[in-house]
Amino acid sequence: MVKQPAPDATRRSDKSRRAIYAAALALVGEVGYPRTTVEGIAARAGVGKQTIYRWWSSKADVLLEAFLDLGERTARAAGQEPYAVPDTGDLAADLKAVLRATVDELLEPLFEVPARALAAEGLLNEQVGREFVERLLQPQLRLYADRLRAAQDSGAVRRDVDPRIALELFVSPLAQRWLQRTGPITYDYTDTLVDYALHGITPR
Amino acid sequence: MVKQPAPDATRRSDKSRRAIYAAALALVGEVGYPRTTVEGIAARAGVGKQTIYRWWSSKADVLLEAFLDLGERTARAAGQEPYAVPDTGDLAADLKAVLRATVDELLEPLFEVPARALAAEGLLNEQVGREFVERLLQPQLRLYADRLRAAQDSGAVRRDVDPRIALELFVSPLAQRWLQRTGPITYDYTDTLVDYALHGITPR
Repeated sequence: MVKQPAPDATRRSDKSRRAIYAAALALVGEVGYPRTTVEGIAARAGVGKQTIYRWWSSKADVLLEAFLDLGERTARAAGQEPYAVPDTGDLAADLKAVLRATVDELLEPLFEVPARALAAEGLLNEQVGREFVERLLQPQLRLYADRLRAAQDSGAVRRDVDPRIALELFVSPLAQRWLQRTGPITYDYTDTLVDYALHGITPR
Repeated sequence: MVKQPAPDATRRSDKSRRAIYAAALALVGEVGYPRTTVEGIAARAGVGKQTIYRWWSSKADVLLEAFLDLGERTARAAGQEPYAVPDTGDLAADLKAVLRATVDELLEPLFEVPARALAAEGLLNEQVGREFVERLLQPQLRLYADRLRAAQDSGAVRRDVDPRIALELFVSPLAQRWLQRTGPITYDYTDTLVDYALHGITPR
């Protein structure tokens, strides 16, 4: 059974938690994943190392939650429901809205610097890559797949389409432009991706 | 005017060049880009550092040419023309053929390990990223864009489509699966991407 903390303890621990998240994100952005340590995060957050180990088992765990928290706060600041793809019945409009919010997030320096450090580590270190993809990226991709499945039910997407592959037509181009800086990231761009993915590029 | 080397000198320098390429690719795969040095490449290739500086001005230059050379050799070994997108008049077949050859290349360990090390560095180091994207990736993307423009001329692709964005519908998903290990890479997968990109996912 988990003890309910007294109100004061809750406030104190929320404050520590927030400080630890901020320290973890700042540190990984500055020195990279390999040189980020639980000790370094604790020192920067002004807490004892044991405070971190009470809540998390590793730096990967701290960073994972720090990113989840950052994503939630960024979405709410933009007036979006975090980790949701709306279903207004208009598939194109729904996808465009979520991708525009993603553009905002990707261009936010608070997100960009640590996310880039983590993505780079994920390319090299297969275990880190798989863990973060599984826990941060795949849940978001599943939301797109669910939205496409709902569109199949309503007849807006063909039944023979694999939603898990189809979502990559608009998600992956944005990801590659951001990761590899292969082109500008704008609302016009993501709107265009959605139109091409839905309707194709051949004459109808 | 460039002097023609004697045949013996050409053979000798081709052999050194090949050894230097192999050393550069192996080293960047093993220790990463930041710890790869011209000295280290020279030592591993069994040549003097001045031999490398006679032909290249930096480790970035050596690695760039080593990748171009590897790409050419991999393509020829697969029976493909390197750095070409065929135009048989059948757009879907042409794109599928090139993407299948790319799948082979991405799954080749000789390519994968150094390419991953370089891609990771490109995420963190904007200058390295921009240089390698501009000199290695963009030329390949331009070939796809040219092929899509030819398809616009023949009426196989709509005139209002931007070829530079459209190519990302099949190139970027493959790149992301490879970079971030978000899913399996197979011929079936890339064939499906081409079909979705050309015809869209909504009912026709």
